[in-house]
Amino acid sequence: MSVKAYGAHAADKPLESMDITRRTPGAHDVQIDIAYCGVCHSDLHQVRAEWAGTQYPCVPGHEIVGKVAAVGAHVSGFKPGDLVGIGCIVDSCKQCEDCDEGLENYCDGMVGTYNGATEDAPGWTLGGYSQEIVVHERYVLRIGHPEQQLAAVAPLLCAGITTYSPLRHWNAGPGKTVGVVGIGGLGHMGIKLAHAMGAHVVAFTTSESKREAALALGADEVVVSRDAAAMAEQGKRFDLIVNTVAAPHDLDAFLALLKRDGAMVLVGAPATPHPSPNVFNMITKRRTLAGSMIGGIPETQEMLDFCAKHHLVADIELITASEINDAYERMLKGDVKYRFVIDNASLSA
Amino acid sequence: MSVKAYGAHAADKPLESMDITRRTPGAHDVQIDIAYCGVCHSDLHQVRAEWAGTQYPCVPGHEIVGKVAAVGAHVSGFKPGDLVGIGCIVDSCKQCEDCDEGLENYCDGMVGTYNGATEDAPGWTLGGYSQEIVVHERYVLRIGHPEQQLAAVAPLLCAGITTYSPLRHWNAGPGKTVGVVGIGGLGHMGIKLAHAMGAHVVAFTTSESKREAALALGADEVVVSRDAAAMAEQGKRFDLIVNTVAAPHDLDAFLALLKRDGAMVLVGAPATPHPSPNVFNMITKRRTLAGSMIGGIPETQEMLDFCAKHHLVADIELITASEINDAYERMLKGDVKYRFVIDNASLSA
Repeated sequence: MSVKAYGAHAADKPLESMDITRRTPGAHDVQIDIAYCGVCHSDLHQVRAEWAGTQYPCVPGHEIVGKVAAVGAHVSGFKPGDLVGIGCIVDSCKQCEDCDEGLENYCDGMVGTYNGATEDAPGWTLGGYSQEIVVHERYVLRIGHPEQQLAAVAPLLCAGITTYSPLRHWNAGPGKTVGVVGIGGLGHMGIKLAHAMGAHVVAFTTSESKREAALALGADEVVVSRDAAAMAEQGKRFDLIVNTVAAPHDLDAFLALLKRDGAMVLVGAPATPHPSPNVFNMITKRRTLAGSMIGGIPETQEMLDFCAKHHLVADIELITASEINDAYERMLKGDVKYRFVIDNASLSA
Repeated sequence: MSVKAYGAHAADKPLESMDITRRTPGAHDVQIDIAYCGVCHSDLHQVRAEWAGTQYPCVPGHEIVGKVAAVGAHVSGFKPGDLVGIGCIVDSCKQCEDCDEGLENYCDGMVGTYNGATEDAPGWTLGGYSQEIVVHERYVLRIGHPEQQLAAVAPLLCAGITTYSPLRHWNAGPGKTVGVVGIGGLGHMGIKLAHAMGAHVVAFTTSESKREAALALGADEVVVSRDAAAMAEQGKRFDLIVNTVAAPHDLDAFLALLKRDGAMVLVGAPATPHPSPNVFNMITKRRTLAGSMIGGIPETQEMLDFCAKHHLVADIELITASEINDAYERMLKGDVKYRFVIDNASLSA
């Protein structure tokens, strides 16, 4: 079937309206009428070929929410009308140890929601800036939030799970002191989630102007990371720091804030390397520097259920598809609180 | 009491015979006739002021074994004649969370066996290149090995525990694939210990010439890390890599060998930074880069008991005190299999 989408024909071209093809649902497929799609910084990296291997036309978008339109003959878990989501993963090998453990995000055969290899035309996956998407039922998530919150649920599919997964894996919860570095799309969800898990949350920002907003999001304390004295007061108190900043920066300033056996988990990867972390900083307190990438399908479902239970959604700014190029420019300036979400109904305009 | 020792009066002076003073044992002290003392690379760094803050005269040595000569009135765990050891720690605050958990090595008040702050003359601790040492009973280890192995037990007190602790903390054992990078004083113990714990052990060396020796130490496989094809074959198979190499080197080459959720633990700290590790390498498989520093007193005792049970000692070359300056030069060239140990009886010569 042919559907309307928004994408780019080249790295140096703006995104524009285009028609793309979706496969007819197979026996295990779910066809989704996309209602909203969040705008992730990865979308911009991919569409502008700032990451290797972008194929054109490129249709970004991996924070997808909508309603089931149709299901294949063997699909039993979903029915038309169900509120569902698709995140960053639309396929994986389904037979490796990672897939067996529900960690499809770490499967070597993981297929991203856009620019991933597929047998469907045109040979690579096309994302959520589109009217419809067809995905194997394994990668479809149930949404328990009220329908009127649907737009604000969209960013949970990437920004939410990317911060939820390390918070859970490294045991954020009551009695733990958790830092969140950066208050953007990912960081604002990290603060909300860590707070809802019961941790004592300290938000780190380079900007004094974000203090009140961070407190409103659920931070117990806010530290301006450029304030050396304020940073020194935080020494050796953190069990976990989730660092959402992808720009190269001084990791040692944060590693030094970890307790013995504490971990700093990077969820963003810089285009050029961070300054090399100080090994003494790690050795003298058995500290850990780790990375984490989105989350598996079962954990993404757990995160959505957790958010529904705790009435958590993202803070968003709703845009039309035709506003996406302007939104990218504003995103580059950090001028968004905290996530743009496309109203996909505007694709038919 | 005045005892013979070997140390340096300045960073640019060779080590020479000198007389130092040991305190009269207090109620909780154990006085030890030192039989042997291992020679650690840290000794050389400290005595040559390659680390900050060396005070002179400097008497190195923190791989100390010998016999109890006398005990204080309140000491019940040791008696004259007992075989005992002292490692890198001779005091700590005894009241922090780290001390309470037996992780004195991570206590902010940890006092090193040499160049640490003390009320004893001359105001800093003097190490095991000496005839006697007096230490609070808390930091004295029992040695269960036969007395004729005593010299080869000495390196367990630093090289042994430094590799044992991360192997235990990161769960080396049956079913686990463990890498040991570098086959020197630390690495050769890492191989022996990981093998005795039941892990599948892969030794990494830059030198093809060390292959047979590494297999003899207990490695199941040996990989020459300069061989790109051989390294590629090891991809994504390691649960744990203990990296003993303190010289700056490419960490990514080893991080890429870790399974999802695998950890590389650095036990050496370079004087200049390693090239900055690739964050994608960490994120895409939730890999961990961590540090570990020696071990606490209870774990050091556990390691000594483990080694006695498994008949493990270090491979050593016994030297006299007067040979120490030559030994340092050979150590700098990597010309030792795998640890020099001073026969402290030679101090009275």
